[in-house]
Amino acid sequence: MNRDFDLAILGAGSAGYACALRAAQLGLSVALIDEGPLGGTCLHRGCIPTKAWLQAAKVRRTVAKASAFGVDAQLGGVEAGQVGRYADGVVKSLHKGLTGLISSRGITVIPERGVLTADDGRGPGIETGGRTHRAGAVVIATGASPITLGLPIDGERIMTSDQALRITSLPTRAVVLGGGVIGVEFASMWVDLGVAVTLIEATDRLLPAEEPGHSRILAKELAKRGVDIRLGTAVTGAVATGDCVTVSVEDGEIDTDLLLVAVGRRPASAGIGLEEAGIAIASTGHVVVDDRLQTSARGVFAAGDLVSGPQLAHRGYAHGMYLAELIAQLQGRSDSTPALPRDSDIARVTYSSPQVASVGLTAAQAGPDAEVVDYHLTGNGRAQILRAPGERETGVARLVRRAGGEIVGVHLVGEDVSELISEGALLVGWQATPEDVAGIVHPHPSLSESIAEANWALTGRALHMHS
Amino acid sequence: MNRDFDLAILGAGSAGYACALRAAQLGLSVALIDEGPLGGTCLHRGCIPTKAWLQAAKVRRTVAKASAFGVDAQLGGVEAGQVGRYADGVVKSLHKGLTGLISSRGITVIPERGVLTADDGRGPGIETGGRTHRAGAVVIATGASPITLGLPIDGERIMTSDQALRITSLPTRAVVLGGGVIGVEFASMWVDLGVAVTLIEATDRLLPAEEPGHSRILAKELAKRGVDIRLGTAVTGAVATGDCVTVSVEDGEIDTDLLLVAVGRRPASAGIGLEEAGIAIASTGHVVVDDRLQTSARGVFAAGDLVSGPQLAHRGYAHGMYLAELIAQLQGRSDSTPALPRDSDIARVTYSSPQVASVGLTAAQAGPDAEVVDYHLTGNGRAQILRAPGERETGVARLVRRAGGEIVGVHLVGEDVSELISEGALLVGWQATPEDVAGIVHPHPSLSESIAEANWALTGRALHMHS
Repeated sequence: MNRDFDLAILGAGSAGYACALRAAQLGLSVALIDEGPLGGTCLHRGCIPTKAWLQAAKVRRTVAKASAFGVDAQLGGVEAGQVGRYADGVVKSLHKGLTGLISSRGITVIPERGVLTADDGRGPGIETGGRTHRAGAVVIATGASPITLGLPIDGERIMTSDQALRITSLPTRAVVLGGGVIGVEFASMWVDLGVAVTLIEATDRLLPAEEPGHSRILAKELAKRGVDIRLGTAVTGAVATGDCVTVSVEDGEIDTDLLLVAVGRRPASAGIGLEEAGIAIASTGHVVVDDRLQTSARGVFAAGDLVSGPQLAHRGYAHGMYLAELIAQLQGRSDSTPALPRDSDIARVTYSSPQVASVGLTAAQAGPDAEVVDYHLTGNGRAQILRAPGERETGVARLVRRAGGEIVGVHLVGEDVSELISEGALLVGWQATPEDVAGIVHPHPSLSESIAEANWALTGRALHMHS
Repeated sequence: MNRDFDLAILGAGSAGYACALRAAQLGLSVALIDEGPLGGTCLHRGCIPTKAWLQAAKVRRTVAKASAFGVDAQLGGVEAGQVGRYADGVVKSLHKGLTGLISSRGITVIPERGVLTADDGRGPGIETGGRTHRAGAVVIATGASPITLGLPIDGERIMTSDQALRITSLPTRAVVLGGGVIGVEFASMWVDLGVAVTLIEATDRLLPAEEPGHSRILAKELAKRGVDIRLGTAVTGAVATGDCVTVSVEDGEIDTDLLLVAVGRRPASAGIGLEEAGIAIASTGHVVVDDRLQTSARGVFAAGDLVSGPQLAHRGYAHGMYLAELIAQLQGRSDSTPALPRDSDIARVTYSSPQVASVGLTAAQAGPDAEVVDYHLTGNGRAQILRAPGERETGVARLVRRAGGEIVGVHLVGEDVSELISEGALLVGWQATPEDVAGIVHPHPSLSESIAEANWALTGRALHMHS
């Protein structure tokens, strides 16, 4: 075959670059094509800068409560410019590391706009600037971009998260449209940075993919800090006039300084030659793939947010690594058959305060025969230590098992619970039974004991829990 | 048999009360005997108040660095009295919960000093105030108490951790004697609360049970914050005179305001009738037990810090639950044979800054054929976000596997890594191979990704790591 690369990848975000790194490791020659910087949305406009802003919000919350812990502190204002510089510093450091890694593995980076070329018998390829790069296989990993609902995004007063991470002064008031992960993270972050936040969600609860009880705890905690939450509310329009944005909802108008539109992200499947190459695309914009992530065109695969399912960077990594291994196998470079992780085995984390983290099935998804235990972290020493005196809610760990069988869901809400969910992913991924886990000693005092306690309760032998 | 209880437990600390809770659950009648409050050392004078003080120290460190995150804050002094009240509040809340739990399970609490009575043919028993409580089995779980090396503890200027958790004003200068877990936690806590700390350790490194490289990182980070660390230094005496303590070391004297003696804890096996009952006790004070924790007297068992091995509350829980299940089985109340966790499968955590957490074997313990991978958290997005701009050290995750085999050690150092070690305990406890773990998706951005990265490297397929 007359080809320039074993593998050409369009999109250098989480899915694309992970695919490139793993493929190069397996001995494939790889082209990684993206007009944007290595790392894509997650590194530059998504997970990383958002979590840095959330960390700044946590620092401010800590300062505000310091005296309850015996530490005298005077809280001043927030320098949004400095928050931005700190976030940029993290992004730059990670970007530098990634660039070095990509380079050290001998991957050819083509920093140009790429378009898929149809397979004319010489194999698939990607065209950049008039030149076609032929490859044994092509992976499309162009990610997703914010849905705007036709609202007049100006980047100044009406914006998506892309611009909201670049503001250099905080608004006095903000309306966040959308109660999914992004909307909730921004509402939590901004209220903790001193902004008066209104959070509007069209459905009847925040984080609709999570356990309803956990959505309620989150809403209650946000409301306690001052977020005005309006559920079941649709926005019909927004107009920026001078210093103000007027947001129209069904039963009136809300004046605010800034409107964040965070209603979801649509797969970035248009304008990159997919349709021209005859690749099937769903009405949602998702690329149609088979159970090996192959599109309707042979040798052309899709990964990450282009593929219907949860939009998560670590799902992108998993897709990218899977495809690298699959393509290496198809090209005779690897003997092992990779396994594609199931979407339900992939943990979801919302880094708001409190954090919400889960993996596997909710109690409702697991069905009426499932056994469900809730361990309230009120009894957890570490949770008691982490919260400021006088605060009430400490969170909940919910475990779900099939009747007499394996653990199928782990659902957490509470301060700093996000790191626990990797244990949850192990339990669900390995289809462990509570009896398998009961003998594993969890350190004291740790939040992770909440998983052990819920697990013991599932075996009928609760320790620090009324039973 | 003519007995008052199925099970009598001497000592209501972690091991004793966990044993009581589980035994009651299994249908045994239980007496829990302790002159002190339910919860013992860990709850009242150990883990819980120490971690609360460490949390106050973290709050102060956060305030001090707030401006680097864009949050203006003026740092004032520390009100030690308020730190104490906050810590007491946590203790009281947990104590109340525990008391309710013990009561709800129908356990008979005898709040008196107890002494083991020899088995005169009517089974073992515990005597309190002239009355002997006969039981089918007895568990001794009296814990440990601070070693003082003969230094003149006055509780004012020369003290153990018991008194150090009750101070109402912070000293200007303090000497901490002992570089084990307790000494390191106090040194880290006090320096972050503004105390000038000298840390003296007789051996050549801090935390001698941990990976030497992790000890070095910890020492470097403490030194950077101003702790004067003196390794390989023996204290020969100490004298309190007026406002000052003079600590004699081999090559001179150190004047300080407070000396904390934290050189270890000795099993509290004396004065409770063990020797009189003919129970074998080692020269270290540990009660000699067989592989089912039975002492040299039939029907008398020992648990927790009395038993040679790591002194950890969660090991106490595990011992207590194991013994409850074993005794229930011996008394025909349970069909299942419990398993006693191996000491090496029990995670160890030091809650200093940075935290050190580990489970299983060190590289040296695993031997020359073991495969070892270090993942530096510099490449970890969450670690980069958590540290203040300009700080350098982010930590290390070390995984150790037998050549081509299972994971036998997980060793972590870094900010907030403690919660990750429960995943480590699962990997080591289940004797997982890196190949078993490679397909488990860890959420991004999380510290737990460091375990996934080190694990991939062990399989020969590092992702975010030069290889």
